[in-house]
Amino acid sequence: MVDDTRPTAHELLSLPRLAPLVPMLYVAWTDGELTSDELRAMGSAARAQPWLDLRSNTVLARWLDPLMPPSPGELAQVREHIRRTAERLSHSGHKNLAELGAQLAQVGNGDEGLPAPMPELTRALSQLEAALGVSGSEAVRSLVPAASPTRFEQREPTSFDPVALRAVLDRTYPETRAQVRQWLADPAYRYTDTRDTAKYRDQVLAWLKALADQGLGRIAFPQDNETGSDLGAFITAFETLAYFDLSLVVKAGVHFGLFGASILFLGTQKHHQQYLPRVASLELPGCFAMSELGHGSNVRDVETVARYDAETGEFVVQTPSETARKEWIGNAARHGRIATVFAQLEVGGQALGVHALLVPLRDEAGRVLPGIRIEDCGEKMGLNGVDNGRIWFDHVRVPRENLLDRFGQVNARGEYTSAITGDSKRFFTMLGTLVAGRVSVASAALSAAKSGLTIAVRYGDLRRQFGPAGDKEFRLLDHQAHQRRLLKPLAKTYAMDFALEHLVERYVKRTEDDAREVEALAAGLKAYSTWHTTAVLQEAREACGGQGYLEANRLAALKADTDVFTTFEGDNTVLMQLVAKGLLTGYKQRFEDDRVFAVLKLLTDRATSMMDRNPFAARRTDSDHLRDNDYHLRALRFREEELLATVSRRIRKRLSAGVEAFEAFNQVQVHLLELAHAHVERLALEQFLAGVAEVKEPGLKTVLGRLCDLYGLSCLEAASGWFQEHGWLEGTKAKAIRKEVTRLCAELRPDAVALVDAFGVPDTCLAAPIGLGHLSP
Amino acid sequence: MVDDTRPTAHELLSLPRLAPLVPMLYVAWTDGELTSDELRAMGSAARAQPWLDLRSNTVLARWLDPLMPPSPGELAQVREHIRRTAERLSHSGHKNLAELGAQLAQVGNGDEGLPAPMPELTRALSQLEAALGVSGSEAVRSLVPAASPTRFEQREPTSFDPVALRAVLDRTYPETRAQVRQWLADPAYRYTDTRDTAKYRDQVLAWLKALADQGLGRIAFPQDNETGSDLGAFITAFETLAYFDLSLVVKAGVHFGLFGASILFLGTQKHHQQYLPRVASLELPGCFAMSELGHGSNVRDVETVARYDAETGEFVVQTPSETARKEWIGNAARHGRIATVFAQLEVGGQALGVHALLVPLRDEAGRVLPGIRIEDCGEKMGLNGVDNGRIWFDHVRVPRENLLDRFGQVNARGEYTSAITGDSKRFFTMLGTLVAGRVSVASAALSAAKSGLTIAVRYGDLRRQFGPAGDKEFRLLDHQAHQRRLLKPLAKTYAMDFALEHLVERYVKRTEDDAREVEALAAGLKAYSTWHTTAVLQEAREACGGQGYLEANRLAALKADTDVFTTFEGDNTVLMQLVAKGLLTGYKQRFEDDRVFAVLKLLTDRATSMMDRNPFAARRTDSDHLRDNDYHLRALRFREEELLATVSRRIRKRLSAGVEAFEAFNQVQVHLLELAHAHVERLALEQFLAGVAEVKEPGLKTVLGRLCDLYGLSCLEAASGWFQEHGWLEGTKAKAIRKEVTRLCAELRPDAVALVDAFGVPDTCLAAPIGLGHLSP
Repeated sequence: MVDDTRPTAHELLSLPRLAPLVPMLYVAWTDGELTSDELRAMGSAARAQPWLDLRSNTVLARWLDPLMPPSPGELAQVREHIRRTAERLSHSGHKNLAELGAQLAQVGNGDEGLPAPMPELTRALSQLEAALGVSGSEAVRSLVPAASPTRFEQREPTSFDPVALRAVLDRTYPETRAQVRQWLADPAYRYTDTRDTAKYRDQVLAWLKALADQGLGRIAFPQDNETGSDLGAFITAFETLAYFDLSLVVKAGVHFGLFGASILFLGTQKHHQQYLPRVASLELPGCFAMSELGHGSNVRDVETVARYDAETGEFVVQTPSETARKEWIGNAARHGRIATVFAQLEVGGQALGVHALLVPLRDEAGRVLPGIRIEDCGEKMGLNGVDNGRIWFDHVRVPRENLLDRFGQVNARGEYTSAITGDSKRFFTMLGTLVAGRVSVASAALSAAKSGLTIAVRYGDLRRQFGPAGDKEFRLLDHQAHQRRLLKPLAKTYAMDFALEHLVERYVKRTEDDAREVEALAAGLKAYSTWHTTAVLQEAREACGGQGYLEANRLAALKADTDVFTTFEGDNTVLMQLVAKGLLTGYKQRFEDDRVFAVLKLLTDRATSMMDRNPFAARRTDSDHLRDNDYHLRALRFREEELLATVSRRIRKRLSAGVEAFEAFNQVQVHLLELAHAHVERLALEQFLAGVAEVKEPGLKTVLGRLCDLYGLSCLEAASGWFQEHGWLEGTKAKAIRKEVTRLCAELRPDAVALVDAFGVPDTCLAAPIGLGHLSP
Repeated sequence: MVDDTRPTAHELLSLPRLAPLVPMLYVAWTDGELTSDELRAMGSAARAQPWLDLRSNTVLARWLDPLMPPSPGELAQVREHIRRTAERLSHSGHKNLAELGAQLAQVGNGDEGLPAPMPELTRALSQLEAALGVSGSEAVRSLVPAASPTRFEQREPTSFDPVALRAVLDRTYPETRAQVRQWLADPAYRYTDTRDTAKYRDQVLAWLKALADQGLGRIAFPQDNETGSDLGAFITAFETLAYFDLSLVVKAGVHFGLFGASILFLGTQKHHQQYLPRVASLELPGCFAMSELGHGSNVRDVETVARYDAETGEFVVQTPSETARKEWIGNAARHGRIATVFAQLEVGGQALGVHALLVPLRDEAGRVLPGIRIEDCGEKMGLNGVDNGRIWFDHVRVPRENLLDRFGQVNARGEYTSAITGDSKRFFTMLGTLVAGRVSVASAALSAAKSGLTIAVRYGDLRRQFGPAGDKEFRLLDHQAHQRRLLKPLAKTYAMDFALEHLVERYVKRTEDDAREVEALAAGLKAYSTWHTTAVLQEAREACGGQGYLEANRLAALKADTDVFTTFEGDNTVLMQLVAKGLLTGYKQRFEDDRVFAVLKLLTDRATSMMDRNPFAARRTDSDHLRDNDYHLRALRFREEELLATVSRRIRKRLSAGVEAFEAFNQVQVHLLELAHAHVERLALEQFLAGVAEVKEPGLKTVLGRLCDLYGLSCLEAASGWFQEHGWLEGTKAKAIRKEVTRLCAELRPDAVALVDAFGVPDTCLAAPIGLGHLSP
């Protein structure tokens, strides 16, 4: 045998000491990812093993010569050998190449000349596997079972029962969900022509009236002899309603969620008695007049003035300039009869900051009252069933009682009192009314994402395009890129479901102590959820091609209606900064409150993080490790801690150096946004994990676990640059993560349709023909 | 003086040998990015410098003790010292901390005890600066000039003349651009109500007819006594037209660009004579009936049949199944009188693959002809001025002459001939007709992106929100995150302008030899440009908040109309795979054609890439290096080469291991898409650079160069994970790139409005009040 011939299967398989290396050698040549350098590196690592004799080393060198690859025929023989030997193994479960090699060597040749005991051999081989840089378990899976995972030929029975999974998703407030679904089943709730704006607005009002009659409003604002307000149930109702027309949802949100809640939270008993029953019944449609043309997200600087006139005992509401006009006010253009108006309160010449008061807009016949001017905002990208308007006040007088005076009161003599002494604290306490709105928007956005995914996944499972020559075309979802574009967002949608359930629970149980924390949570999840929806629906639209562009297939309306979610109820960018500032405050307190404890905790965190930053952990690429949720969570926690520590340092030092505070924050704005994102993502993963932990049924647990792995790994994949920068990931591992994400998508592919079925979007709400088994409308 | 007190400015400034280190020490404490470890690392690096004596070392250690930071007051004294000394420097231009330190040491203390000559000192300091990990020139800029770059208070005169820049953008076919702008200036071209679909469609037809009368069609299809067809001018006309209503643009594209071009390219003289004049005049509105319900992007598998009946000398066109109906055909629902139909040709029982033939649809009165069934596709997300329809053919007979027979002919006896023997080659030659459409869509998409950016940038410059306490609010564009969200896309938009100009030029000059290459170029740039537009418009909408959501402000229509661009005229994902496959073919040929040369070239490429992969280069973080376009280009070339080499290896090995070809490609689909993206991005950067190189005027050259830096660095930033994986970037450098991007955005901010003004979108086309100096409609 001469050395310059190609390597043969025979020489490789005839040497017992090479047996443990056979799977790796096969994979090295067929995986197709190795460079010449890597092959050489593997060779020298292998030759360093003490159990290899000269002959083995010679053959091995030939098998690893990058200039002389084995022929396909020889490789096929090697694969045959591995498969035949593997059949003799007692179990063929999840393992890596090292384990497989060691086991094959044993059953094949005994352990002649090999190091005993086995664990030692496996350990030695594992180092080689790391040098190989391919993820072992993937390679094993493609070697030992015959089938390829990317193609899903028949609609296989899924690994779980979608109905049982739906019960998991519906586990909070199940009666409310069932109730709203039942309401929506009425044929009255079918999509209408949205192009005739006047008709559409009237239809939306009629729908809302019917829902109010059936009791939607009483969930939030019960009548005298009913049990108390249940805002958790109300938000859940809102979430379920969001499977249907989103104008209806937003109009409900404006009237009940913003206007009604402002009376509930900012008013006192007299307001509750006088107004809430008429809010619940929609007898008195209301507006929430906060934003002004010049002051959208920056509410503290609104210009509208409410000056107390002690002589008449009235407030005089005034729009002092054009930028002070109330802008974008839902329900104002057409149906609103009264508004909660946010204005700068002035009493006895003293400026007391932003307060809210009730200002009637129209009489019972719908005529606009004197001193009020209202203009229609006009057509919008979507949500045209909601009548947004602009409002100007020209010395409009309202009685003293119209001040929503829970946090600040004006008595008849014109004396102002408040239990909250600081203007700033009072302002933020009042802004707390917005929280329910944000929770609701986050939930409604999630429902829209579910609708979009249901359509795109079902269509992707139905529609075929391209395929092997002379064979049937592949279904869209059998294409690798299509799996990634839809199944990663699917996993994130499940994560959001658990995270938002947590938010609702925190919101319902909030106390004065954790109110600010819940506000930050709502702000962060509102931003994260609505951006997610925008991205999902864009992906879904493109994934459905031209069909996705037809209005009949609903994605157009879903996109157009939800697009504003990212900027209303608080612009996402502004909200994320609020989250980051909350974290910074907490961080500062952590140090000030208990310095020693904090330092200890920080050291522990660092120690944990060091574990993953050490070269070995940073390089681990086996599936077990990559699918370890603790690992994902440690990574996301590390990122959050690190961003928090660095941004805090950057700001502190700027302030020390004399930079003005606003400017100092502006100089690190992008960093702040990253921190908020890292925080919300960590939190969503935690909630997803906690939710999965509570599921008992093994089939559901498995599939949810897989989704959770996919979500966690997708977060790492998306931030791979950052993690590498910070020594948390090495290049090999970053590659392995990308592969593992692709693999998880392939594993989830057979369950994809069942996973969207489990959302339980009613067919009449989904309405898209391509989401209901048709190739086109 | 005891060692456990805080470090003082006095001790630092009194030691001449520490003088060169003063700027670095100041930055180390005020930059706020350094961890304790980094401070320590810097300390040991500094102490290794031979010129430091014991006393200097002691003080230095105290100044770098992470547990004992200097007080703000001491830091302020240090800053004062630096500033005072800096005033004595002869020039204060662009420099790094090392240079500044060396210079300050000289003017401050002479060079007592310091190593001479200066370059040596600077070199030693540069190493410290690298250890510091902060980008020196940024730090110098914030130390030496007093002003902060993030805020742009007054509308400063920009650094260049927007009119001159517009001339650069308009340099190709300037007369055509001027002509179309002049047409669009006619008051007839004002946006119309798009909600009444029937009226809107008629309006669009009327506009198109007026343009045809004025000569739009004759640019592409000249009359007998005019000069030849100028498709470059036609595409440019199309691009300019795309500042106005996009339904008009798409209808023009369908009729002239697809239908007309199919006759021009696939037909022969008899067709040209008979049809082209009536195409040019719009006397005969036509359709391009390629896509079928079941076969969108996969045209090769269309099912429609055209069977030759030798007895009558006619083709019989037939829709054999429901999935075979022609779908999404523009101009079909209402106005089209004839269609180019793609069908499987059968002659004498022989299947000859896809061919195109002309099939009349309606008579002169607009009545649908016998055997033809047409259905309206219905309302769409956007582009409702285009009447898309479905077509079924029931044994429709057309004369033999209706076959567009440039590439395949059927004679009267029913004998088929073709100069192209391979079915596959013939098919792809015919598909070449689609190229003009793709070039046009890419250009139209770019115009829409320019409109969207113009609106968002001008609004961002006008609108104020949030600001320092007691001071004026900042303009939106003075916020760091806002700069990044708009100015990065602005830079990419400029890049696309140069890249698409290159594409048009290549398309116009294409020969048979490079036709496939030009097709791949068109496919790649169409995908890249349309995805860019979708992303830009989304960002622009969000950046304008609620105002962006109002239809009056135009972003809604821009978004809705262009959304389908990513999936029509070839689905982007499919097109990108086509690009990748083209590259693989070229790669294979490179090896087969000239193995030795190819290996040499590869080695050279590798050597170049190694230059940047060596630890020193991978860590360089100075501005000069980061703004070196050669560096950007080397990076993008390296990525493309690397992705090409690895994907080629992965596919080859799969094929060797017996994986079926389609499946093998599917298993690396995501990798293929990455490769295509890398290719297009490299190409766009090259063209941008080439374009800038041709500009002479220094002001324009500077600002375009800055945009080009921003584009190049943004590409690196976005792929930072990948570049780190492949050893091209180290963590410190990845951070420095992110900072440099932020800084470039801040530098471009004063020019932002002038840069969108230079696009020259006509006011009447832009039409958005917030894009024309108003805060709202």
